Amino acid sequence: MRDVRAALRQQRIETPSWAYANSGTRFKVFTQPGVPRNPEEKIADAAVVHRLTGVAPTVALHIPWDEVDDYAALAKYAADQGVGIGAINANVFQDDDYKLGSVTNPDAGVRRKATDHLLECVDIMDATGSRDLKLWFSDGTNYPGQDSIRARQDRLAEALSEVYARLGDHQRMLLEYKLFEPAFYTTDVPDWGTSYAHCIELGPKATVCIDTGHHAPGTNIEFIVAFLLRAGKLGAFDFNSRFYADDDLMVGAADPFQLFRIMHEIVSADALGEEAGIAFMLDQCHNIEPKIPAIIRSVLNVQEATAKALLVDADALAAAQQAGDVLGANAVLMDAYNTDVRPLLRELREEMGLDPDPTAAYARSGYAEKIVAERVGGEQAGWGA
Amino acid sequence: MRDVRAALRQQRIETPSWAYANSGTRFKVFTQPGVPRNPEEKIADAAVVHRLTGVAPTVALHIPWDEVDDYAALAKYAADQGVGIGAINANVFQDDDYKLGSVTNPDAGVRRKATDHLLECVDIMDATGSRDLKLWFSDGTNYPGQDSIRARQDRLAEALSEVYARLGDHQRMLLEYKLFEPAFYTTDVPDWGTSYAHCIELGPKATVCIDTGHHAPGTNIEFIVAFLLRAGKLGAFDFNSRFYADDDLMVGAADPFQLFRIMHEIVSADALGEEAGIAFMLDQCHNIEPKIPAIIRSVLNVQEATAKALLVDADALAAAQQAGDVLGANAVLMDAYNTDVRPLLRELREEMGLDPDPTAAYARSGYAEKIVAERVGGEQAGWGA
Amino acid sequence: MRDVRAALRQQRIETPSWAYANSGTRFKVFTQPGVPRNPEEKIADAAVVHRLTGVAPTVALHIPWDEVDDYAALAKYAADQGVGIGAINANVFQDDDYKLGSVTNPDAGVRRKATDHLLECVDIMDATGSRDLKLWFSDGTNYPGQDSIRARQDRLAEALSEVYARLGDHQRMLLEYKLFEPAFYTTDVPDWGTSYAHCIELGPKATVCIDTGHHAPGTNIEFIVAFLLRAGKLGAFDFNSRFYADDDLMVGAADPFQLFRIMHEIVSADALGEEAGIAFMLDQCHNIEPKIPAIIRSVLNVQEATAKALLVDADALAAAQQAGDVLGANAVLMDAYNTDVRPLLRELREEMGLDPDPTAAYARSGYAEKIVAERVGGEQAGWGA
Amino acid sequence: MRDVRAALRQQRIETPSWAYANSGTRFKVFTQPGVPRNPEEKIADAAVVHRLTGVAPTVALHIPWDEVDDYAALAKYAADQGVGIGAINANVFQDDDYKLGSVTNPDAGVRRKATDHLLECVDIMDATGSRDLKLWFSDGTNYPGQDSIRARQDRLAEALSEVYARLGDHQRMLLEYKLFEPAFYTTDVPDWGTSYAHCIELGPKATVCIDTGHHAPGTNIEFIVAFLLRAGKLGAFDFNSRFYADDDLMVGAADPFQLFRIMHEIVSADALGEEAGIAFMLDQCHNIEPKIPAIIRSVLNVQEATAKALLVDADALAAAQQAGDVLGANAVLMDAYNTDVRPLLRELREEMGLDPDPTAAYARSGYAEKIVAERVGGEQAGWGA
Repeated sequence: MRDVRAALRQQRIETPSWAYANSGTRFKVFTQPGVPRNPEEKIADAAVVHRLTGVAPTVALHIPWDEVDDYAALAKYAADQGVGIGAINANVFQDDDYKLGSVTNPDAGVRRKATDHLLECVDIMDATGSRDLKLWFSDGTNYPGQDSIRARQDRLAEALSEVYARLGDHQRMLLEYKLFEPAFYTTDVPDWGTSYAHCIELGPKATVCIDTGHHAPGTNIEFIVAFLLRAGKLGAFDFNSRFYADDDLMVGAADPFQLFRIMHEIVSADALGEEAGIAFMLDQCHNIEPKIPAIIRSVLNVQEATAKALLVDADALAAAQQAGDVLGANAVLMDAYNTDVRPLLRELREEMGLDPDPTAAYARSGYAEKIVAERVGGEQAGWGA
Repeated sequence: MRDVRAALRQQRIETPSWAYANSGTRFKVFTQPGVPRNPEEKIADAAVVHRLTGVAPTVALHIPWDEVDDYAALAKYAADQGVGIGAINANVFQDDDYKLGSVTNPDAGVRRKATDHLLECVDIMDATGSRDLKLWFSDGTNYPGQDSIRARQDRLAEALSEVYARLGDHQRMLLEYKLFEPAFYTTDVPDWGTSYAHCIELGPKATVCIDTGHHAPGTNIEFIVAFLLRAGKLGAFDFNSRFYADDDLMVGAADPFQLFRIMHEIVSADALGEEAGIAFMLDQCHNIEPKIPAIIRSVLNVQEATAKALLVDADALAAAQQAGDVLGANAVLMDAYNTDVRPLLRELREEMGLDPDPTAAYARSGYAEKIVAERVGGEQAGWGA
Repeated sequence: MRDVRAALRQQRIETPSWAYANSGTRFKVFTQPGVPRNPEEKIADAAVVHRLTGVAPTVALHIPWDEVDDYAALAKYAADQGVGIGAINANVFQDDDYKLGSVTNPDAGVRRKATDHLLECVDIMDATGSRDLKLWFSDGTNYPGQDSIRARQDRLAEALSEVYARLGDHQRMLLEYKLFEPAFYTTDVPDWGTSYAHCIELGPKATVCIDTGHHAPGTNIEFIVAFLLRAGKLGAFDFNSRFYADDDLMVGAADPFQLFRIMHEIVSADALGEEAGIAFMLDQCHNIEPKIPAIIRSVLNVQEATAKALLVDADALAAAQQAGDVLGANAVLMDAYNTDVRPLLRELREEMGLDPDPTAAYARSGYAEKIVAERVGGEQAGWGA
Repeated sequence: MRDVRAALRQQRIETPSWAYANSGTRFKVFTQPGVPRNPEEKIADAAVVHRLTGVAPTVALHIPWDEVDDYAALAKYAADQGVGIGAINANVFQDDDYKLGSVTNPDAGVRRKATDHLLECVDIMDATGSRDLKLWFSDGTNYPGQDSIRARQDRLAEALSEVYARLGDHQRMLLEYKLFEPAFYTTDVPDWGTSYAHCIELGPKATVCIDTGHHAPGTNIEFIVAFLLRAGKLGAFDFNSRFYADDDLMVGAADPFQLFRIMHEIVSADALGEEAGIAFMLDQCHNIEPKIPAIIRSVLNVQEATAKALLVDADALAAAQQAGDVLGANAVLMDAYNTDVRPLLRELREEMGLDPDPTAAYARSGYAEKIVAERVGGEQAGWGA
């Protein structure tokens, strides 16, 4: 039991600045009172989540959503709040120029603009001390024939190569993939294979980022996790959950057993600790539920899945697997999954000087009422807006 | 050949006012120059499509996107342009009150408001002479447990029943279904079975509307078409195409063979003509391509699929089917599909006094340049915005 | 707690005779030692499962796989073993005549033969005291145009109607649906809507059977459960689990949370007890794992999901739902799901005079060794063979 | 037009020996009269297809389904019939030992046996002059925890490496991938990324084989084609079509537009000719339709899609793509797709001294009646049996 608690105590889950902001679907963005109006307020909210859970010490930024004049000052502000700056997420999908793509656009001028933005994000990493540049490209096409699939790969490789060369010694590139949306015919980085192939080409600082909502129906995500861990090319997760497409629901809400299986691969490969270099990040949209409680719930969901994965009897599992005992091996895994780990986690929080129930503690804290009262005027920050 | 041409000459494809307006994904709406600023300009664009294609004589409205003070005047304006008002599409998904649903909301006050909007749409039908009330509900839930699936069905049935009672003798209710989006766990009318069951309960004026982009992967849409035709409960199509989810691409762009198979069921059931009461409507989003040319292309795609379906040798098909000749029956169908019907359609247009190439005619017409020049100032109309 | 135990004590889960037999994929059937060679041996195995779990008192038959000369004697044999005869499953897919369909075949003679088999199954129901006729039709087509979708519906309706008329007062027809396989273009009863529509036409003795592996990706099964319960048309479940298609894995193995959500709808509608008339059946293929232990595990999985569903705080859930408290309502549900119900079930079994661990009890019983030793010679029974 | 005909004249489509044999689903194998009883008869049928179509000069073998004592003699027999031996397909899924995997089995002895079979297949390549070793592994697991995903990758890599080392200078390894079936939880080579990564590790003689029916729903196959062509790692196609899973229907039957898009990528990359080293193979199951006519139809479908792809105006397409003309570029592609190429192909066949209508020529030839009459007694060859 000692090791389980030690591992859980050191777990790190990064929350994203944009999850504290308004979000929605193409049909409607329902705004919520108290939502942050600027990067500082997002960071303040992230700091609350960390204070309550003890395992969310960094916050990811999205540029230009979190654009400020002085990034060093922003990092200082975050540190004062008790959190660090996590991944810098580049955004090359919301400018009118990117209608037909960013780094894969047929127009060289647009590609230049997009690549320059990526390079600027590395500048921001320098200023904030961020280690990770996270790249998600919405690039793709909507209609067969619209553009050359192959030419777009050439353009992508060229841009990635230029950005990769700009990375400092301790900086990394995380290349995310996504099956579809907003592009509806081809996407230029649609699957882990494409991301992996580019990362192999680029070199050791480039690794794959798995967003758990970005796969075709039926895709076995834990297989990808295991494969990339074996290849040394898994860099990060964007956690969320989905029933259909990229629903961006709270992680663990749609299929908690899948989340457990993913964490089981992580634990099996001894890749939970910081030295393994896997960034565990949330990437979610809380369209109809209150933001901060939803993020707390999400952090706890990852924590519970991790605790269950840590409880798997690895020796018994290996023995059953080697013996070809199908039901026995499955039973070892399910035994851990079926365990109620909430008492363990409550105890752990008390050991860490935290409230055993972060959700209740947040409700009691008055923070929700405070931000509703204070954050009036100005413009609420919005996801995708 | 005579019958094929006669059938094609009488074909009716309804275009939607909102397809002429700006649209996009949750990530970005790319605006286009020349896009309409009000319902009249949308109708003017629809009239251009009809003048060029000869088979798009009506335009569907979306309330409140097409809200005006005087609907009779709007209908008069349309008639002056040479088109009629088609289906009235109710919108109960863009008001803040509808965050947790409209007619299925747990709050009775919200349900009343939503139902009142539906009743108001019938008033608009009275004023415009529209026959069809098209109902699509975005209602649903995002998280397991969020609401009672069953209670929501009760509320839905109650609202539908009240609206049904308000319909005039020659008015109909078209009940659309959709698997998901914007709701990500349950949708209150997720599939044709749900829509069908409610329509059966309601009575003969209620029929199912099939949106070709609203199904689970692998769903055989032509089966649903055939089934509903047999049951006398197919009321309308919302045509578009998709590779993944509700992509809302141009109909026929993703899977032209599927569109042909759908039209084959229509033709087989002798349901192409107006007397069959099936409304053939487009429901698309032209996010990155110019609106009017895309709608022209879509109308032509439906027309080409219809022409191919009309060319199927029905007697040969029936004989091969009855004989259990799998390859022979398939070959009869494919023979029609593989035929290039464009020459036939060009001839038909010339017979109808139209330009044989509507796309080229539009390009030559100067209309695109004219609306770009004229439609400055004001606010462009937007889909979902 | 009292009610939970009472409900669990009365739960009834039916096991299928064919799950005790060899099964496989189109690529290979791996035979297992000790597998039954005749219906009696299948029943004997089912009786073992019931003795150990206490909640599996009936066994479903499949005709002609379980064909015997004297069905009354078979029922007597079962009773002597301590189990009853459950649903009679008709098989109209393994005769060479059914290559192009059974009751929907274009050939009237084949249709007659198929319908006669269905009628014979009712005779067997009379002889065995079985209440339920379960109908699954593999009928469909592989190629567009191969046959008329609509004509096949007419033929289906005709056959169902004839069989329905033959049912006795206390007999029922369960109409199963399936998206695809073995037919690969159209299936004649592909979804719940089709089954429901036919059942409505037929009358009150016809209800829908939900096989949890027979849906398109992304289908929300608990929605269908809730809808059919509301409509009074849910007759039975064929439980199993799947990651991809109709994988026929052990129920609860692929997505235990989904199984819980399904049982939550059952419990919410107070439909767990026998008086609600829902038959809870397994329909699985244990291709690589030992049969009896897999079936025991499956029964326990249903039992555990049921126990969790019974633990949902219905009042708290309803209050949160009515208040529009998205996270609160979800939390009530998850609180039950995250509970470890295995201690409760162990206690329950002890109260029922059973071994608290049926899996271990089976392993200790020596039955596995006994059947391997005894069941030599003869021909092992096979699923699909 | 000259180039189009020249390209079509040199096209090579390989037919598989097993497609001439009986096949089915797990539910039933419907046997057909006249089906081959041994490898020679399969080759004879393949030769008929080549004589009629002129573009099917090789036949793939499957070991042990096509096991003979003297492979050189078999190759000689094929040559006498006018066809060559194509790819050698290894089969490590139908022996009882492979229940838990072949080269990834936890048991080292089973792995040895499986690898030895692969090596034996290279011997057969030596004897027959075959260039390609095609490897499809059904290996995987059915239940979470059943085996270590990562350990299985290690075992896979080890076996592939040993076989790769055995390849002669002019021999190649084609590594196929498949999402699922017969394994239902993990598959050890589930997607192109996995196959690609192993091929990269192995070296230049290892390339990816794309089976068009082996993908998750929504996967854009032509993207994979374009990506692998760019990377120089596309080795072969297994053509077939599907509506749902690995349906193995006739290529082009389910989505002819997709087949065209795939061939468009091939033509765009100038990879149609033999020097490009792409093997275009069929891999189908004709469960309900007559075998030889179905294979002829399939060959023609590939030919028609190729002809359309060759008709794409490459200059106009590139110009529209570069200009960002979404509709214009799509229209160039669709213009080719909508062309009826059957007259062109009929003319081509006449130029080649063939009957313009191979299907009709086969029907007239009397071959079907001949094999039904002659092939009595013995045991019909079966796919997967």
